[in-house]
Amino acid sequence: MSDRIILNEVGLRDGLQNQATIVSTEDKLKLLELLEQAGLTHLEIASFVHPKVVPQMADAEAVVSGVDLSSRRYSGLIPNLRGYERAKLTGLREFGLIMSASSTFSERNVKMSLDQARATCDEVVDAIKADGGHSRVYISCACACPYEGKIDEDFVVGLAADILEKGANEVSISDTIGAGTPLQIANLTAPLIQQYGAERVNLHVHDTRGQALGMVWSAYLQGVRNFDASIGGLGGCPFAPGASGNVATEDLVYMFNQSGITTGVDFEALERAVAFAEAVTGSVLGGKSMQWLRRKST
Amino acid sequence: MSDRIILNEVGLRDGLQNQATIVSTEDKLKLLELLEQAGLTHLEIASFVHPKVVPQMADAEAVVSGVDLSSRRYSGLIPNLRGYERAKLTGLREFGLIMSASSTFSERNVKMSLDQARATCDEVVDAIKADGGHSRVYISCACACPYEGKIDEDFVVGLAADILEKGANEVSISDTIGAGTPLQIANLTAPLIQQYGAERVNLHVHDTRGQALGMVWSAYLQGVRNFDASIGGLGGCPFAPGASGNVATEDLVYMFNQSGITTGVDFEALERAVAFAEAVTGSVLGGKSMQWLRRKST
Repeated sequence: MSDRIILNEVGLRDGLQNQATIVSTEDKLKLLELLEQAGLTHLEIASFVHPKVVPQMADAEAVVSGVDLSSRRYSGLIPNLRGYERAKLTGLREFGLIMSASSTFSERNVKMSLDQARATCDEVVDAIKADGGHSRVYISCACACPYEGKIDEDFVVGLAADILEKGANEVSISDTIGAGTPLQIANLTAPLIQQYGAERVNLHVHDTRGQALGMVWSAYLQGVRNFDASIGGLGGCPFAPGASGNVATEDLVYMFNQSGITTGVDFEALERAVAFAEAVTGSVLGGKSMQWLRRKST
Repeated sequence: MSDRIILNEVGLRDGLQNQATIVSTEDKLKLLELLEQAGLTHLEIASFVHPKVVPQMADAEAVVSGVDLSSRRYSGLIPNLRGYERAKLTGLREFGLIMSASSTFSERNVKMSLDQARATCDEVVDAIKADGGHSRVYISCACACPYEGKIDEDFVVGLAADILEKGANEVSISDTIGAGTPLQIANLTAPLIQQYGAERVNLHVHDTRGQALGMVWSAYLQGVRNFDASIGGLGGCPFAPGASGNVATEDLVYMFNQSGITTGVDFEALERAVAFAEAVTGSVLGGKSMQWLRRKST
C-alpha cells in the first residue's frame, strides 16, 4: 500500500458554497493558483447544481474554462443527469455525486427517497462510466443524521459496497455534520479498504465537534489514503468562524508532513491561500496549525 | 486491559496558571464543584511553585483545605523538595513533578541541566515514596522543544523508563507545546505501555496545532488510558483564546463517550463548568464540541 496521501481540496466548492459572500470567478481562480502553488494536485472546483439553489456556484462553467484541465485532477459536483450533461460540456472528467445514508435527510434535502436517490445516482454513474469519466459518490450523513441520529454502520458499509459494485470509481465516507468519532470511522472504512482497496475509498470529514483530525488519523491507520479537506477550514457557517467547516487542509498537511508521510503539499505555502480566502470571503479562517504559524511569524 | 478512561482535569492548575486574571480561591472551589458534578474524579488543583513565580497559584494551601481530600483523587504540582514539604502539610497525597526532555529548555526554564533536574526529580520521588504518596513525573517537551526542535524519541522513552524504574508511580508524556503528531505519540507511548502497563503512563497534550485529539486517539490505540485535559481548553495564551491551551476536557469526553468508551463524565454537564470558567477568567473558552453544544442549545 502506498503511503502517499492524496488530498482533494474542496475549499472552492464545499467551502465557498457555504459562505454568505459570493466570490468572483477571478478571485476563485486566484485562490486556485495559490493552492496549486502549495502543491495541491486534486481539486474540486465547481458545482453544477442549479444556480438558483447555490448562487455561489453559478459561474461553474467560467471557473472550469479558466483552468488547464490537463494540468491537475479537477472535479465538479453534479446533482443529477442534467447537471452531468452541463458539467460534461466543460471538459471536466471527474465528478462528485451525493447520496445520503439517511432517508429523512434525503427526503428533506433533495426531495427523494433513498431508493429514488439511489436510482438517480446509478443512472449518473453509468453515464460517466460510458463516457470514460471518473465518479466519486459521497455518502453523506455516514456517521449521523441531524434528524435520525446515529446511522447504522452495517447499513452504510453495505450501501458503499453496493455503489462500488455497481461501477462507481470511488466512494467517500462523509461525516457531513462532523458527528463521528475515530472509532466509528475505523468501523466504516476498514471493511471497504479490505475489500476494494485504498484507491476506491475517500474520507470527507467536518470538524464540527473537534473530532476531524482524530477521524483522519483513524482512517489512515485503516489504510485510507484519499482525504477531502478545505483550505482554512472554509465551509462552516459564516456566523461561527471555523466552527463547523470542513477539516482544514493545513491541519492535515501538518499532521502528515510532520509524521514523514508524503502529501506533496508545502505547509507554509498554504498561508497565502488562507490569507487570500479570508480576504475574499470576509471570514476569519485557519485551522489551529495555521493560527500557530501566524503567531510564530509575527 | 480496562477500557475505562481516567481523565485528570488540570484546568485548575495548568489552565488557570496561564491566565492573566487571578481567580479567587472561592471561585476555584466553585469551578471544582461543577467539574466534580460532571463526574470528574481526578483533579490537579494547585501548584506549590513559589507564589512570586506563579501568583495565580499563591492560594494553593487554601484551595486544598477547601476540599474533602478523601472524596476524589486530588493532586498538586511541586517543583522541588521545598515545594513537596509545603504540599505535604496540606494533606495531599498525589504529586506532579516536571522534568524536561530538552536540556536547553531545562536550562532556560528551571536553570538546571538535565542531570541536575533529574537529581532533583529522583530526590522528590524518593521522598514521596517514603511517605507512601503517589508521584507522576511529567516529561515536558516530549515531542519537541521551542529551542531544540524535535526531541529524539528513543531518548524520551529511555528517560521515561528510567524514571519509572527509579520508583515514580507514573510518567506523563507531555507535548507541552502541542508540536507532536499521532504517529510520534504512538512511538513514545507504545513501548512504555508494553513494558510498564497502562496504570503507569499518562498523556498530556496541548492543541496548539490542532493535533491534540488525533494524538489522544493514537495513544488510546496503544493502550494509554490516563489522559490530562483542561476544561474549555483553558491554559492557552489569554490573547489567543483556545489557540494553544491544553486539549479541552469536553472534546475528549465527547470522543470517548460517543465511542462507547467509559469516561464517567457527563458531556452536557461540562457546559456549566465551561461557562463558569469563562466568567471568572474573562476568556472565551470551549473546545469545538462545546461550541457545537452551545449552538445546538440556542
